[in-house]
Amino acid sequence: MSLTIREIAALTNATIFGDPNYEIQGVSSFDDAGPRDLTFAGDPVYLSKLDQTKAGAVLVPDSFDLDKQSSVILLASSNPKISFFKVVEHLYAKPPMAEFIHSSAVIDDNLTIGNGSRIDANVFIGKDVHIGAHVHIMPNAYVGDGSFIGDHTIIKPNVTLMDFTRLGKHVIVHSGAVIGSDGYGFAQDGQTHTKLIHTGHVEIGDHAEIGACNTIDRGTIGVTLIGNGVKTDNQVHIAHNVKIGDNSLVVAQVGIAGSTTIGKSVILAGKAGVSGHLTIGDGAIVGPYAGVSADLPPNEIVSGAPHMPHKTWLRVANIIPRLPELRKKLFSFEKRLKKIENITKDTE
Amino acid sequence: MSLTIREIAALTNATIFGDPNYEIQGVSSFDDAGPRDLTFAGDPVYLSKLDQTKAGAVLVPDSFDLDKQSSVILLASSNPKISFFKVVEHLYAKPPMAEFIHSSAVIDDNLTIGNGSRIDANVFIGKDVHIGAHVHIMPNAYVGDGSFIGDHTIIKPNVTLMDFTRLGKHVIVHSGAVIGSDGYGFAQDGQTHTKLIHTGHVEIGDHAEIGACNTIDRGTIGVTLIGNGVKTDNQVHIAHNVKIGDNSLVVAQVGIAGSTTIGKSVILAGKAGVSGHLTIGDGAIVGPYAGVSADLPPNEIVSGAPHMPHKTWLRVANIIPRLPELRKKLFSFEKRLKKIENITKDTE
Amino acid sequence: MSLTIREIAALTNATIFGDPNYEIQGVSSFDDAGPRDLTFAGDPVYLSKLDQTKAGAVLVPDSFDLDKQSSVILLASSNPKISFFKVVEHLYAKPPMAEFIHSSAVIDDNLTIGNGSRIDANVFIGKDVHIGAHVHIMPNAYVGDGSFIGDHTIIKPNVTLMDFTRLGKHVIVHSGAVIGSDGYGFAQDGQTHTKLIHTGHVEIGDHAEIGACNTIDRGTIGVTLIGNGVKTDNQVHIAHNVKIGDNSLVVAQVGIAGSTTIGKSVILAGKAGVSGHLTIGDGAIVGPYAGVSADLPPNEIVSGAPHMPHKTWLRVANIIPRLPELRKKLFSFEKRLKKIENITKDTE
Repeated sequence: MSLTIREIAALTNATIFGDPNYEIQGVSSFDDAGPRDLTFAGDPVYLSKLDQTKAGAVLVPDSFDLDKQSSVILLASSNPKISFFKVVEHLYAKPPMAEFIHSSAVIDDNLTIGNGSRIDANVFIGKDVHIGAHVHIMPNAYVGDGSFIGDHTIIKPNVTLMDFTRLGKHVIVHSGAVIGSDGYGFAQDGQTHTKLIHTGHVEIGDHAEIGACNTIDRGTIGVTLIGNGVKTDNQVHIAHNVKIGDNSLVVAQVGIAGSTTIGKSVILAGKAGVSGHLTIGDGAIVGPYAGVSADLPPNEIVSGAPHMPHKTWLRVANIIPRLPELRKKLFSFEKRLKKIENITKDTE
Repeated sequence: MSLTIREIAALTNATIFGDPNYEIQGVSSFDDAGPRDLTFAGDPVYLSKLDQTKAGAVLVPDSFDLDKQSSVILLASSNPKISFFKVVEHLYAKPPMAEFIHSSAVIDDNLTIGNGSRIDANVFIGKDVHIGAHVHIMPNAYVGDGSFIGDHTIIKPNVTLMDFTRLGKHVIVHSGAVIGSDGYGFAQDGQTHTKLIHTGHVEIGDHAEIGACNTIDRGTIGVTLIGNGVKTDNQVHIAHNVKIGDNSLVVAQVGIAGSTTIGKSVILAGKAGVSGHLTIGDGAIVGPYAGVSADLPPNEIVSGAPHMPHKTWLRVANIIPRLPELRKKLFSFEKRLKKIENITKDTE
Repeated sequence: MSLTIREIAALTNATIFGDPNYEIQGVSSFDDAGPRDLTFAGDPVYLSKLDQTKAGAVLVPDSFDLDKQSSVILLASSNPKISFFKVVEHLYAKPPMAEFIHSSAVIDDNLTIGNGSRIDANVFIGKDVHIGAHVHIMPNAYVGDGSFIGDHTIIKPNVTLMDFTRLGKHVIVHSGAVIGSDGYGFAQDGQTHTKLIHTGHVEIGDHAEIGACNTIDRGTIGVTLIGNGVKTDNQVHIAHNVKIGDNSLVVAQVGIAGSTTIGKSVILAGKAGVSGHLTIGDGAIVGPYAGVSADLPPNEIVSGAPHMPHKTWLRVANIIPRLPELRKKLFSFEKRLKKIENITKDTE
């Protein structure tokens, strides 16, 4: 498959500087691109070395000074990165999925399924499940009783959806993810811990993407809720009755303890942890490795464990490795103080 | 299904304040409950707003002052939370499991299996496996050669039990968990790392519950041992030859390095890490994100990385965000000291 | 199966002190060994109590003073641990694997497969896959379209290899691992996050071992590369376009963010995190829980979050729990300073 520069410009609403009939056959990174590849220069670093790329064409920002001479074809667009991946989508387009249920799939009673959906080998579907249109359930996945899967959703191989899980439309669940497992809920009974039966479930909004090996527990009673457009990275843990607002980002290896509410458009950076029963305001940002143990107001930016304002953390992070020096200075002051005290004692 | 207040009282050994013939059809949280729901008020916060719930009945503690008038039916019990979940168990009782082996399950030679057990679709069972009575092995699980599974144990979908794993009775293993993988054991051989063959196995006691996507490695030689009643949350990592005592709690994303021994009734909070070859005493508590790098005596409570007594940590956690102020103060002292020294120099 | 001391000495190139005809039937740890077991004493602690073991024979280092009398048979070798595990390999040798494809495996078009390979039950193999010789793919694994698996590689149960994954020879992938999932790559589009199509793949070198429940994302464009002899522990997360050099060790629950390059023979200890777009030099060592947020030169040893030289960290870790004392001291100085200032004021 290939696209001319003219076709790419039309696709991405870009302005052409160079030969509109030149043919592009693939995409690559700025440094690895060859003469038939398209690449993009989002970063000023790359814009300054356009003469060094061997790419056939480069997507650059509208704001770039296009008077500069360039041996490579340039395509100016409002967002070169988004434009680039639009071209990727065209060049690497998958053939449309054919409606299909593999003979080795095991399907319990009372499945309703939309048009154009595909169920692959060794999949298990429980009873009373609803699968929308154009859904793809990949090999060795498990879909529990009473689950609901919206249109255009993709369940990757080896995913587990426990009973009564509800997924929206255009959701992607990556391999190894477990959705709807029992939460970590026990009642102390002397020395032993009595299991609480979890009657809740998990609900995930439209356009959400759940990373590989995530664990999202069902509500104890009630629901664990992942909003529309939420994207979780790999190995994220979300406990029972957590709510996450629309378009929030949860980066790899984050853990969110039970009953915490995360607002909309929040970012939790890699390895951060949030304690239970907290409220994190819309637009808040939590830095990597941070441990959040109190509510955060909207748009607050915090880092560190214990968490603190990010600006404070930047200064604290500078001081921590210097603690030995500071301690030494403090002890040197002691000597100096004693010396002075000895002198001034006489004057008292 | 429904229960009268009288039936609920009998079930939970509670005292009734209100109409014993009222019918309850479901359960819910305090805030979401409707007129045919039971809820519970374990927390003083909820006890103070009994007039606000729309629940049909509320389980309250024996100690609650029941002279107070209440429009809602009250049930006084010694542990409202445990009582509540006893009712849940009745209202949401699953039909008894029927003995069954799905035709797509692949079972190797020499299986022994007790009465009333169920093996679901696409399960693989190795050779020389023992499965007790009333065991449920859910779809797409793998049970390796020579494994032993005690009575009433549940293996959820997509679980992996490597060869010679031994599970007690009434164990629950959640989806995505891997039990009996090789430990991280190598011998340095020049620049390369020679794999050590792991001949050990994993043994898990009665009434243990293993969270989703846990990894529990087999002993290098000898056993990795999880005691009776131990509950692990999701994404817990337990390395080779670790021993965990009875009724300990291991919260989400905890990691325990090789050959460490954890006592009985220990609590390891979320994201904590314990280094290898340590001994953690009975009843010790390790705070969230803590990094434990030395033995802990029984009942010690620690937090922080490096770990320290929890009380110290509370003070340290308060000081860390104030380090910039303290540093400023320290530097201001320097100036003041110099000034004084200049004055006193003359008096020397 | 059993081996005489003479056979063990031949196998491990060891010198015998004791009866060469004595028969060994198993192996065990120093403390648990019985009269027909071989054990090893790598550590001086064990060498000092050779009279206490009930083992039949003990492997000791060449450097050990063998004039000392010993009731137990000793075998002196240059590396007792490696020698011990060589014996383990012989005593616990598995029968050679028979070529075999289980009837329940689902295999798409155009598989090429070498001699002596085995595909177990419920495995799914996509189209255009190459499987080398003596490869073992265990039950319920998924191998995506266009994947390449080198000779003698073992894929454990419930592993997911997404399309176009390339594994070298003698690789082991443990259960629950997900290789080739989409990276966490989005372009901000107003409030929402537009998914970037990931056209890259994962490539893993010879003799690498990938731990249980690892997640290794494919390159966005280009490759995520794991070098020869790299060993990852359980629950490791490796993001898109990361490169890891030969023979590096990545311990449990480590996370490596996107586009970071890790050198050769690097050690990342448990729970460490490395930010994106960094370069970690050959032979660097990162301590447990450390958070690395800048490039590291070769052979640098760092710890802490923020990371710092390990030697600094050892001092810092000592000071952090003493911060309350230091703060108290600092405030006491304030009083002393004021007092002196009051005195010296008069002398000004």
